[in-house]
Amino acid sequence: MSGAIRKNFASDNTSPVCPEVMAALARANEGDAMSYGNDPLTKALSARLSDVFEAPVAAYPVATGTAANSLTLSALTPPFGAVLCDESAHIATDEGGAPEFFTHGAKLLTLSSADGRMDPDAVSRALTDNAHGGIHTSPIRALSLTQATEWGTVYPLDHLRALTQTAHDADVPVHLDGARLSNAIVHLGCSPADVTWRAGVDVMTLGGTKNGAMAAEAIVFFHNGRARAHEADFLRRIKRSGHLWSKQRYVAAQMLALYEGDLWRHNATAANETASLLATGLAKRSGVLLPFETQSNEVFAVLPETRVEALEAAGYVFYRWPTPPGVDGILIRLVTCFATTKNDVAALLDAV
Amino acid sequence: MSGAIRKNFASDNTSPVCPEVMAALARANEGDAMSYGNDPLTKALSARLSDVFEAPVAAYPVATGTAANSLTLSALTPPFGAVLCDESAHIATDEGGAPEFFTHGAKLLTLSSADGRMDPDAVSRALTDNAHGGIHTSPIRALSLTQATEWGTVYPLDHLRALTQTAHDADVPVHLDGARLSNAIVHLGCSPADVTWRAGVDVMTLGGTKNGAMAAEAIVFFHNGRARAHEADFLRRIKRSGHLWSKQRYVAAQMLALYEGDLWRHNATAANETASLLATGLAKRSGVLLPFETQSNEVFAVLPETRVEALEAAGYVFYRWPTPPGVDGILIRLVTCFATTKNDVAALLDAV
Amino acid sequence: MSGAIRKNFASDNTSPVCPEVMAALARANEGDAMSYGNDPLTKALSARLSDVFEAPVAAYPVATGTAANSLTLSALTPPFGAVLCDESAHIATDEGGAPEFFTHGAKLLTLSSADGRMDPDAVSRALTDNAHGGIHTSPIRALSLTQATEWGTVYPLDHLRALTQTAHDADVPVHLDGARLSNAIVHLGCSPADVTWRAGVDVMTLGGTKNGAMAAEAIVFFHNGRARAHEADFLRRIKRSGHLWSKQRYVAAQMLALYEGDLWRHNATAANETASLLATGLAKRSGVLLPFETQSNEVFAVLPETRVEALEAAGYVFYRWPTPPGVDGILIRLVTCFATTKNDVAALLDAV
Amino acid sequence: MSGAIRKNFASDNTSPVCPEVMAALARANEGDAMSYGNDPLTKALSARLSDVFEAPVAAYPVATGTAANSLTLSALTPPFGAVLCDESAHIATDEGGAPEFFTHGAKLLTLSSADGRMDPDAVSRALTDNAHGGIHTSPIRALSLTQATEWGTVYPLDHLRALTQTAHDADVPVHLDGARLSNAIVHLGCSPADVTWRAGVDVMTLGGTKNGAMAAEAIVFFHNGRARAHEADFLRRIKRSGHLWSKQRYVAAQMLALYEGDLWRHNATAANETASLLATGLAKRSGVLLPFETQSNEVFAVLPETRVEALEAAGYVFYRWPTPPGVDGILIRLVTCFATTKNDVAALLDAV
Repeated sequence: MSGAIRKNFASDNTSPVCPEVMAALARANEGDAMSYGNDPLTKALSARLSDVFEAPVAAYPVATGTAANSLTLSALTPPFGAVLCDESAHIATDEGGAPEFFTHGAKLLTLSSADGRMDPDAVSRALTDNAHGGIHTSPIRALSLTQATEWGTVYPLDHLRALTQTAHDADVPVHLDGARLSNAIVHLGCSPADVTWRAGVDVMTLGGTKNGAMAAEAIVFFHNGRARAHEADFLRRIKRSGHLWSKQRYVAAQMLALYEGDLWRHNATAANETASLLATGLAKRSGVLLPFETQSNEVFAVLPETRVEALEAAGYVFYRWPTPPGVDGILIRLVTCFATTKNDVAALLDAV
Repeated sequence: MSGAIRKNFASDNTSPVCPEVMAALARANEGDAMSYGNDPLTKALSARLSDVFEAPVAAYPVATGTAANSLTLSALTPPFGAVLCDESAHIATDEGGAPEFFTHGAKLLTLSSADGRMDPDAVSRALTDNAHGGIHTSPIRALSLTQATEWGTVYPLDHLRALTQTAHDADVPVHLDGARLSNAIVHLGCSPADVTWRAGVDVMTLGGTKNGAMAAEAIVFFHNGRARAHEADFLRRIKRSGHLWSKQRYVAAQMLALYEGDLWRHNATAANETASLLATGLAKRSGVLLPFETQSNEVFAVLPETRVEALEAAGYVFYRWPTPPGVDGILIRLVTCFATTKNDVAALLDAV
Repeated sequence: MSGAIRKNFASDNTSPVCPEVMAALARANEGDAMSYGNDPLTKALSARLSDVFEAPVAAYPVATGTAANSLTLSALTPPFGAVLCDESAHIATDEGGAPEFFTHGAKLLTLSSADGRMDPDAVSRALTDNAHGGIHTSPIRALSLTQATEWGTVYPLDHLRALTQTAHDADVPVHLDGARLSNAIVHLGCSPADVTWRAGVDVMTLGGTKNGAMAAEAIVFFHNGRARAHEADFLRRIKRSGHLWSKQRYVAAQMLALYEGDLWRHNATAANETASLLATGLAKRSGVLLPFETQSNEVFAVLPETRVEALEAAGYVFYRWPTPPGVDGILIRLVTCFATTKNDVAALLDAV
Repeated sequence: MSGAIRKNFASDNTSPVCPEVMAALARANEGDAMSYGNDPLTKALSARLSDVFEAPVAAYPVATGTAANSLTLSALTPPFGAVLCDESAHIATDEGGAPEFFTHGAKLLTLSSADGRMDPDAVSRALTDNAHGGIHTSPIRALSLTQATEWGTVYPLDHLRALTQTAHDADVPVHLDGARLSNAIVHLGCSPADVTWRAGVDVMTLGGTKNGAMAAEAIVFFHNGRARAHEADFLRRIKRSGHLWSKQRYVAAQMLALYEGDLWRHNATAANETASLLATGLAKRSGVLLPFETQSNEVFAVLPETRVEALEAAGYVFYRWPTPPGVDGILIRLVTCFATTKNDVAALLDAV
């Protein structure tokens, strides 16, 4: 990595694994350990995250965010239920139908929003309408929020609390897709507890892969919330979906590497800073429009098609996004990660 | 590992990752790579395995054997179909219902056998009876064999061919659970091609984890067999079950490490040899009965309960198996792996 | 029924069974007949409907429209696929998640429309976007249309053809939810063939229950369309969902009663006529707004809340519908059926 | 029916509907009624069956036994669980995989038995072994018994109580497949309460179709048992599977016709008596072997193949069953029903 200019801004999962995680995997590779989670590292994870989140939690490490989200939803909703989420939610648009697979066909009911952040009033109306639907509708059994959102925005704490309160008033538990939760925490400058259970989150997917791990997320049940009742037999769900590694210590080791100290914060801070630099730089370019505020490590920008093509010709890698109707130009997404440097950003800004 | 005597014979998945696989992961950790399998390592795997198996194959690496088996079965049978297998098959007894999950409720129909190896005549009768059952039964749409079997035995090639021929005569494709295929190949002294497609196997799970990998198996479709028709959209199945890593290069790298050269054979040979030593040594002990021939890396033995307890007291780790009716003593399973040494075996034999 | 004024306009399934269907059930009740569809009446149904639709069809009678729609979709789409439909579609809003149950979790992707009739351009865009989504999305494998729609409107033939052509261009088969197809045919004045396979419909649910039957619909595969490839093992799907009656003759008898002669047309004509009378009468009332043209047997009307309450107080039974934002008053639905008389309508109009 | 000799002994579902049920359907066909179970007849059913069974129950009528059994099991077991039953159970052999469909892939674990009646010791062992299996097995969450069994035998009350006690000791609820429960009650000469909740049954399928109905069974939850906790949202399960008729009154009317008075007992008595006559007569024939005691309305007999062929040639209709190994001759099943007469039996005995 050293030296070369990073030209891949396609995603925070195109980067390599951060060195500290590789070192943790090497350390985990000593001696025998019982399989299927009966190893010391897996057992240590819940305790460690209970410290980080200042509350008793049960943590289940798995290899992918898709599995983590879907396994969690399968515990919250029966097959005949529904999950309410934003139309931009990863579970709705990017997981190939995994939530429907794991939940055995529960419905994802989506609401539209301006920037990926759900509106408490809209959520309230949806819950009320749903309750009136009776036997003909699929009853909403979970609210799923994404923090940071898929548009790179972050819910402020009071916004989050308004949403979770609305859900709880309808006796609906709240799931947080925290694939980029560390980026949101860094942006908010709050504690991990503030943005989760103190704000009404009952269970979450805590991301590792996008923050420097190889293949690791943790499903975290907050035992002081409404999640506990849904946790029964959760390990059976993991096993039955093929997500319980026999050598489970190696997935736990990755999460521990991130959360034993401040690596998670260090990596997220780095990614947020270069994203911020990039957004600021782009905003100064004429002809460039930033449709969303950059609050984490994703920058969305509308550029004239010629400039997009020029960037691609210069070897830059990123995704073109469906451009909203009425917008002139091409919407692209640029994602930074722990390994992105200020030089990488400067070079990209030069190239624009 | 060096120096200390290994006392854990619980499974070939309690061992660490072999050094060559760790080195391959480190090598894979250079620079950016496109995600979800669009990386050079994942792309190289099919070509490499086509060489190893002397036939065109498509290989899909995933992290666990449970996922590999179940994903494959979900492509072979519709939800209303059935899979025929031995009653000892891992898919039937040890995967927590994963085949039923991935296939959306297809039935596993099991036949009993003496040593985990299915009887061609029994398979033939089962297929005939099933075909006569009409609309009220679940039609058999796959035969799933295990090589080496769960009892540590290995199908000779002609036995395998008799089974696959019976299935093919009924237009039923054959899946091989090859979690320990490398051990079987070493035992048979044949080529990888001989024991798979040349013997009528249409698609298989090729094990890595039990043979030294961290978390890696490959689903291998032989394109000269009956598998090809079932491969459509297979990647969607992987994605939808959360088994497509975003950083997929790291699962492919493990399989490549095993199969680029002869590491797979080297590791399996080591495990088979220590298992053989162990079996030979145990057979000489009075009061010890070996119910099955040791043909791979699993040794089953019946010992008086006092001796089993003595071994446990001495710090040895292994599983007690359900002892068959009429057998006097305790049936235990002892599993060796690539890292087991002759000294480890000698120490265990001394302890018996 | 005779004499009393019908005050129940809640639905066309609150009415009794029409006398001809009851007579047919009595006729079917003679002697023994083989079970599970191996009876003469079930066997006669496909031939009869082939005549009615002027094309070779295979017809599978089942007791409910929810089952008929969902069974059909389960044959068209794999579990990882998606079905495109209008947001008002019965399958999306009123079947308690049945399509997701039968398809094992396929997604319903919905488009909004003005009056329940899908827009070919919107369908075309959705198909194009979906194809570009790649591995992360659920691929659209069926287009499901409703004729007459849930808002009581009817697709003209050219509109229908534009939609089916768009779907076929993307190699997507077309399902028609024809719970009220007979009402649509009567409105259009066309032949059953014109509005189905000649307009590009590949497979449909042909309604019986709302048109005078007790519990009977037929799933009809047009063998000259794209449906045939999806029909394999269809009876197994019916059996596996508990929808194959052992005394199957009694569900077939109902559909035969409707379609042996012109009873289906007679009943639908009666229902359409009283609905038309009702709509015309309501439109003349001041303060009453009809948001949709009444083209079948459903009348939607916006009335001041006091008048709605007065009707309810007078013993009238009907459903209040969610009133769209910005509309002043209460949206109600009034449904007529084969048994509704002109006197019933006159009395209702008097009561308004 | 009158006059002609009945030659169809294929099943108790090849017979017509008994006249009293037809009359009840005609009576139900008066006036409008709210749909989806909000009608007086459906509402009356739970009260009526609470009287019949001398205990508070909730009854849900559906059209088929396959649906009734599978819906019930889907409430008792999560998708990752298992159901223990006899290898001859209808749910295991004759429902085309319906239990797996409705339960989303729960396993059916089967035990063998001599005559369809499960052995309490074998059940006890299976429950113990299953509990020890841990995360790798599918935990047994229901015991499903069949009364009368598929072999025409009937559990005595103490046998039944021994089984339910074993299940309850393991905290496992008991389901009874009572497709032919009325035949068993008549044989035992006990009350409906004695053979169900007083014997430890928690929830059952109460058969109607085989006892003279058109298409009607009832799922009955005993509220004084362990069933109640599993009943939440049960109507949603019925709706989601397409088994909630819009004109639900017509399925309820059938069950009421059987259970308002003693019709259920009258019909079952008639069927049992002709079966008994038939069995007694067959037993006197040389060369005829009756492998099971005839305790309900099914007679199994082994005859020389020539005599079986002669019966078929004479127009008799029945099923050949798989003949057990070592038995000389052909095993056939002969089923009587409410409409079978002594003359029918005499004619058949003459023909043998």
